[in-house]
Amino acid sequence: PKIITLPGDGIGPEVTAAAVAVLREVAPDVITEEHAIGGGAFDTHGDPFPQRTRDALQDADAVLLGTVGGAHDSPWNRLPRHLRPESGLLALRKALGCYANLRPVRVQPGLEHLSPLKPELARGVDILIVRELLGGIYFDGDRRLEGHVAYNTMRYTTPEVERVAKVAFWAAEQRKGRVTSVDKANVLEVSELWRRDVQALRDREYRSIHLNHEYVDSVAMLIVANPSRYDVVVTENLFGDILSDLAAVIPGSLGLMPSASLGDGPGLFEPIHGSAPDIAGQGMANPAAAIQSAGMLLRHGLGRPDAANQVDRAVALALRQHPTRDLGGQADTQTFTQAVLRALE
Amino acid sequence: PKIITLPGDGIGPEVTAAAVAVLREVAPDVITEEHAIGGGAFDTHGDPFPQRTRDALQDADAVLLGTVGGAHDSPWNRLPRHLRPESGLLALRKALGCYANLRPVRVQPGLEHLSPLKPELARGVDILIVRELLGGIYFDGDRRLEGHVAYNTMRYTTPEVERVAKVAFWAAEQRKGRVTSVDKANVLEVSELWRRDVQALRDREYRSIHLNHEYVDSVAMLIVANPSRYDVVVTENLFGDILSDLAAVIPGSLGLMPSASLGDGPGLFEPIHGSAPDIAGQGMANPAAAIQSAGMLLRHGLGRPDAANQVDRAVALALRQHPTRDLGGQADTQTFTQAVLRALE
Ligand SMILES: CC(C)[C@H](C(=O)O)[C@@H](O)C(=O)O
Ligand SMILES: CC(C)[C@H](C(=O)O)[C@@H](O)C(=O)O
Repeated sequence: PKIITLPGDGIGPEVTAAAVAVLREVAPDVITEEHAIGGGAFDTHGDPFPQRTRDALQDADAVLLGTVGGAHDSPWNRLPRHLRPESGLLALRKALGCYANLRPVRVQPGLEHLSPLKPELARGVDILIVRELLGGIYFDGDRRLEGHVAYNTMRYTTPEVERVAKVAFWAAEQRKGRVTSVDKANVLEVSELWRRDVQALRDREYRSIHLNHEYVDSVAMLIVANPSRYDVVVTENLFGDILSDLAAVIPGSLGLMPSASLGDGPGLFEPIHGSAPDIAGQGMANPAAAIQSAGMLLRHGLGRPDAANQVDRAVALALRQHPTRDLGGQADTQTFTQAVLRALE
Repeated sequence: PKIITLPGDGIGPEVTAAAVAVLREVAPDVITEEHAIGGGAFDTHGDPFPQRTRDALQDADAVLLGTVGGAHDSPWNRLPRHLRPESGLLALRKALGCYANLRPVRVQPGLEHLSPLKPELARGVDILIVRELLGGIYFDGDRRLEGHVAYNTMRYTTPEVERVAKVAFWAAEQRKGRVTSVDKANVLEVSELWRRDVQALRDREYRSIHLNHEYVDSVAMLIVANPSRYDVVVTENLFGDILSDLAAVIPGSLGLMPSASLGDGPGLFEPIHGSAPDIAGQGMANPAAAIQSAGMLLRHGLGRPDAANQVDRAVALALRQHPTRDLGGQADTQTFTQAVLRALE
């Protein structure tokens, strides 16, 4: 199998290198090919998602992404919108057709103390957020800023709702069988469609799933006040952006949060932390999320659950033995990666 | 001065009665007049915001609202959207022209243990969320659900942005002088307008204010991971709905969260908790938020800061001496209210 790696900006290259080393260890038959994306790609190719990168995706089996974007005051942020690093990321998602973003939020036993929540609330949290990734207000063409008025349009169609809801129901079948669909149906017509279509799909094809509907403002509260009440959470793009980042603080370090974006073509696998330009190039970054993303790549991208489980176990062990600095430990990127590799042997 | 009271549904009447008792104690010259809103108003008048209520607002100096809405499975939720309790609330906001919703989030000293956050994170939190309340995707007429497609439009104009930003800057001047404006300017044109206009207003008229801009997903993380970094947070309607509810969990009980909605006419003052139909009519509800809302009414609606401060101090004392059940204490609605009244004497 062929994996396209897109290390990107900031700490992206170092954590991607760690993930590739782990991938090679458990799947020696993979071929990797590196390409440019993000701010660095703009600097060298004048485009945050260069044509060469786009072409390379054609025969990929999966894509392993690092991070994109610069510091708050980076000159990249003053470029016209379509040339900014984020646009490269959005174009990549679109090119791959990845409509379902999966973000597992799990508090590792023994690491409850890292959570900003009280340990008794953090303990045992195990949520899967499924975010619609190609629709809604992010991509709709009906958008404008002109003089003193601006607007964007949050639009969904039934097929868009159904395809991502299917991923959520399918995931719930292998978990506790509970799905919470999140919307703002008391105010928005687009949410009324969302709620109706998710419910109809459940009633037609997933009768064994327990589905309930909650408002986005209420979920924002309850995911903090009582996170254990959630199993699978499915929602549209913008709500998913907010809620998945919110949920990501529960484990206490973004360094522990992988993600998978799935669609009809090759999947996209990436850590959710940012590019952390302040520590880039120093070998200090926690590569756990990138390595776990490689684990998700093995599971969802290559259909190798055994190898994925091996990676997950090795990361859990390494986290206990050699915690990185963001976790209050001492390990640098290399020490942690070596610990994972040793645990895999 | 004339106060219109709108007790509404669920526990609304009991907590509003408590707030009115307190109001009478510190401002014996107020006249109150009660009117219908919400589900109950639909039941008796066929409209969640009856014409009689609308007319009564004409000569009001301020409006004290209880809560609206029924249980999750209430028949009210199956009515056509424009007849549901929430529509009454939205119509009321619009009728009053209340474009700025102020929600103070304060962790009372000694009550840190109630927070879902670790006490060291909860301690000293003092945030004011200013939510735009009459614009954006909530009210824009460009909306539709038809067959298999639905959309809503998030639109803002410069005057809409400026008037609410002014409220945020004004509030910051009496606090720590720091404003965080929240948007999704890396994706949305409407956020680009928002950011540009907020910054321009600051540069023109509020040079002493320290203004920064953050993305909504990042704020959702940081308000949990590090709430003390925020002073005043200003944002558009939908983001404000989510973030203000999210921030509201920090103090640990919605029973402690008042709000004020201000505009060009009379202000609207209400507790942010829901109608809690499960405990309605039992005299168990915590009236603290309703009483604190009466405090905000005195401060912002009638311009009586001394009376407002008295109420705030009396509530703080009563909370320590007679905590209600939601706070792990024993006090019922009446006991708590009496404690506040005694503290005021
Ligand atoms: C960088 C940005 C465009 C992106 C998004 O909003 O989707 C990011 O926040 C994410 O969640 O991956
Ligand atoms: C009931 C609902 C329409 C309302 C809103 O979304 O504004 C509520 O959530 C609030 O925040 O006051």
